[in-house]
Amino acid sequence: MSKKLFAEVFGTFWLVFGGCGSAVFAAGVPDIGIGLLGVSLAFGLTVLTMAYAVGHISGGHFNPAVSFGLLAGGRFSAKELLPYIIAQLVGAILAAGALYIILNGAGAFSKEGPGAFATNFYDMPGYHGRSYSLGAAFLAEFLLTAFFLIIILGATDKWANGKFAGIAIGLALTLIHLISIPITNTSVNPARSTSQALFVGGTALSQLWLFWVAPILGGIVGGLIYKYLLQRSDTEANS
Amino acid sequence: MSKKLFAEVFGTFWLVFGGCGSAVFAAGVPDIGIGLLGVSLAFGLTVLTMAYAVGHISGGHFNPAVSFGLLAGGRFSAKELLPYIIAQLVGAILAAGALYIILNGAGAFSKEGPGAFATNFYDMPGYHGRSYSLGAAFLAEFLLTAFFLIIILGATDKWANGKFAGIAIGLALTLIHLISIPITNTSVNPARSTSQALFVGGTALSQLWLFWVAPILGGIVGGLIYKYLLQRSDTEANS
Amino acid sequence: MSKKLFAEVFGTFWLVFGGCGSAVFAAGVPDIGIGLLGVSLAFGLTVLTMAYAVGHISGGHFNPAVSFGLLAGGRFSAKELLPYIIAQLVGAILAAGALYIILNGAGAFSKEGPGAFATNFYDMPGYHGRSYSLGAAFLAEFLLTAFFLIIILGATDKWANGKFAGIAIGLALTLIHLISIPITNTSVNPARSTSQALFVGGTALSQLWLFWVAPILGGIVGGLIYKYLLQRSDTEANS
Amino acid sequence: MSKKLFAEVFGTFWLVFGGCGSAVFAAGVPDIGIGLLGVSLAFGLTVLTMAYAVGHISGGHFNPAVSFGLLAGGRFSAKELLPYIIAQLVGAILAAGALYIILNGAGAFSKEGPGAFATNFYDMPGYHGRSYSLGAAFLAEFLLTAFFLIIILGATDKWANGKFAGIAIGLALTLIHLISIPITNTSVNPARSTSQALFVGGTALSQLWLFWVAPILGGIVGGLIYKYLLQRSDTEANS
Repeated sequence: MSKKLFAEVFGTFWLVFGGCGSAVFAAGVPDIGIGLLGVSLAFGLTVLTMAYAVGHISGGHFNPAVSFGLLAGGRFSAKELLPYIIAQLVGAILAAGALYIILNGAGAFSKEGPGAFATNFYDMPGYHGRSYSLGAAFLAEFLLTAFFLIIILGATDKWANGKFAGIAIGLALTLIHLISIPITNTSVNPARSTSQALFVGGTALSQLWLFWVAPILGGIVGGLIYKYLLQRSDTEANS
Repeated sequence: MSKKLFAEVFGTFWLVFGGCGSAVFAAGVPDIGIGLLGVSLAFGLTVLTMAYAVGHISGGHFNPAVSFGLLAGGRFSAKELLPYIIAQLVGAILAAGALYIILNGAGAFSKEGPGAFATNFYDMPGYHGRSYSLGAAFLAEFLLTAFFLIIILGATDKWANGKFAGIAIGLALTLIHLISIPITNTSVNPARSTSQALFVGGTALSQLWLFWVAPILGGIVGGLIYKYLLQRSDTEANS
Repeated sequence: MSKKLFAEVFGTFWLVFGGCGSAVFAAGVPDIGIGLLGVSLAFGLTVLTMAYAVGHISGGHFNPAVSFGLLAGGRFSAKELLPYIIAQLVGAILAAGALYIILNGAGAFSKEGPGAFATNFYDMPGYHGRSYSLGAAFLAEFLLTAFFLIIILGATDKWANGKFAGIAIGLALTLIHLISIPITNTSVNPARSTSQALFVGGTALSQLWLFWVAPILGGIVGGLIYKYLLQRSDTEANS
Repeated sequence: MSKKLFAEVFGTFWLVFGGCGSAVFAAGVPDIGIGLLGVSLAFGLTVLTMAYAVGHISGGHFNPAVSFGLLAGGRFSAKELLPYIIAQLVGAILAAGALYIILNGAGAFSKEGPGAFATNFYDMPGYHGRSYSLGAAFLAEFLLTAFFLIIILGATDKWANGKFAGIAIGLALTLIHLISIPITNTSVNPARSTSQALFVGGTALSQLWLFWVAPILGGIVGGLIYKYLLQRSDTEANS
């Protein structure tokens, strides 16, 4: 296996272990728990830290929707797409397994209720008791992934301060979670959704399709928006 | 439409969608909600992320008061002012529309009470039950926008570490919200205030004037302060 | 007045307006208030933002203990010490005045209880109902300011990544507040303590001496530690 | 004593004083306490700030598991290992002593209950009332330290943006705490565990072995993973 793929495995492991781990271990501790703000920060920091650690090896996707979006934006090759996605799924599933073992070490694994084991969901009464419809969930996941890709493509543009991209992209994921955990538990990443759904099954698995379709579609649209509406041609930039 | 204006549309969309979105979706979730700290972080991260993503395209204003302030500070041309402000309003209103659709997908849109749908307000009992007077609200918005512009002009000064400007400016907006959400729900940005007021109407609309006048006046004064009291001339800097 | 001194006035105004402002306006809002974490972040961000905005003008002290410490560390000239401290006091007092006016606009100014109007204190039952003795308060202020200066001198050392100093120093102030708000309401800055005490009077004023002596002594010791125990000579660095 | 060792003493003092200090002084303040999120941020900021302050002097380990991991990864020499670890222990114990004195100044030192004085623990009902087994605690500490070293080695790799390493590594420690405070009170650092256990004794001392073995083993494995599976050879990097 190439070093690029190892980087995607370890990076996506960290994303799921850190992001979903902070949710299942620490979010709901009474009085002093980290809450949705802490979980949002954790997801973002997994990407920020791995972007600086292995971004120079694999580009630091850790997310099939990002790989699709970078392809659409002209920054990634089609022949690497499938191996990257497989590596991302492997990393995510291994991480979910590790979370399952540790949680079980306290007898605290549970499949009950929307968002159990940090799964994504729609059209079920979640936070606030609010139930966001399929359409609302789809729109949120679509828009957030599209903007995620605009930020990724913009921050790594050759005309941008590329060395700061890890900060901008990681904190963009934090921001995305600050907005949308109460809507869908926030996916924008099919690998992260799949690993958690596999361990919980049931509705988590039957709703999984949305967390592939909406983020990937959003990622592609975001990639195209950046490429055609925002990215400066060499001619423009020189003027 | 030029790429600059697209950048302002997308950037201001993100500011309103992320900042006001985090407020309406996630701030008030019982026990684990992100609270005013999370909303403050979200507003700042919208600007931090878009500054690195599209700052190299449009300069990354996303705010009419910033455009006015940069004009006063000698860093922006008068003939671009109106197109920029229109682009900012378009982005903000589209974002408010998206928030409205998603929130309605859970039947959770409401116009009731001060700060509904993240609108700005004054002289009404808000957080804490405290009611800040028109004068207090005006002074707060004026001062905060003035300092926002001092930071923007300083951090992008040719003598400064300009590559860090996106971090400094984004986190300045976080800081501004940490201070003033309980005072006015924090505007410092007429576009953000307008988009939310349009969907709520009533008092939100009748009080909207303050969130144009105070931030723009503050922005202009901040721009002039930086230009005349702080900015070093080339002669001084060489000495 | 020189641009350096204006920079210190505006920077220290921002430190007090943002740090103490977040405390008096937003910390204690029920359920969604920013709490001590938000106030800690606010204090740090005032310095981070102003360091990038005006650090290139005045060096960005905003604090008499920092000026003393930089003098002890050999990075600041004795003849500038007094003008800097006066400028810092002017900025701090103006900021406290602005906070007073805005707070009064909601009828919410109060002098009651330890820490009212964000004053510093010791030997009084504060947070937790715990009462930290004069000795404990002194030791905490002394140690925290000493380490603050070690970080300032280290991060701005010519062998360090100096462009990151604004981030390191700003977040050091956040960290200091995360540790010590419950001990003394955190000073480490005589200007910030003075401005708040002047408006509250009484015990806040009679205890003010500690928040001059301990931080300045700590700053001087920190400066000497960095200079004599840590700073590499040119000979060492070349080896 | 060399400047390198002084840097490790002061850095590890700061890590324990700031990280454990924020926990014992500020985490549990009712309503406005900083909670586990604030403690996580504090631990990370101790490393971020000291990395920029003295990283250029000693490399900024502040942690025996990091020193072991850097040795395994080929970035540190065996003959410096023991002096570094002794310096780290000295710094940690001095910091615990300072925390003890300040806490006693409010009569608030206590040895009661799991996690008293920020000690680490396993197999005892802690946060949530959950009791994580020895195996779960070991796995968590092992995995988190392994990934910590992957991030350290990656972010300081010559092919990476090394100047951002202090941010990535510091925030990695924040992330690690966001995940695992409820599991073991988070060690990943034998020096930090030892200093706190020495003051509390009893179970904290009898369980201390795990917080040496698991982090050091994890650190070594992380170092080897980076070296053999991720690090690009010069030949690869040039292609």
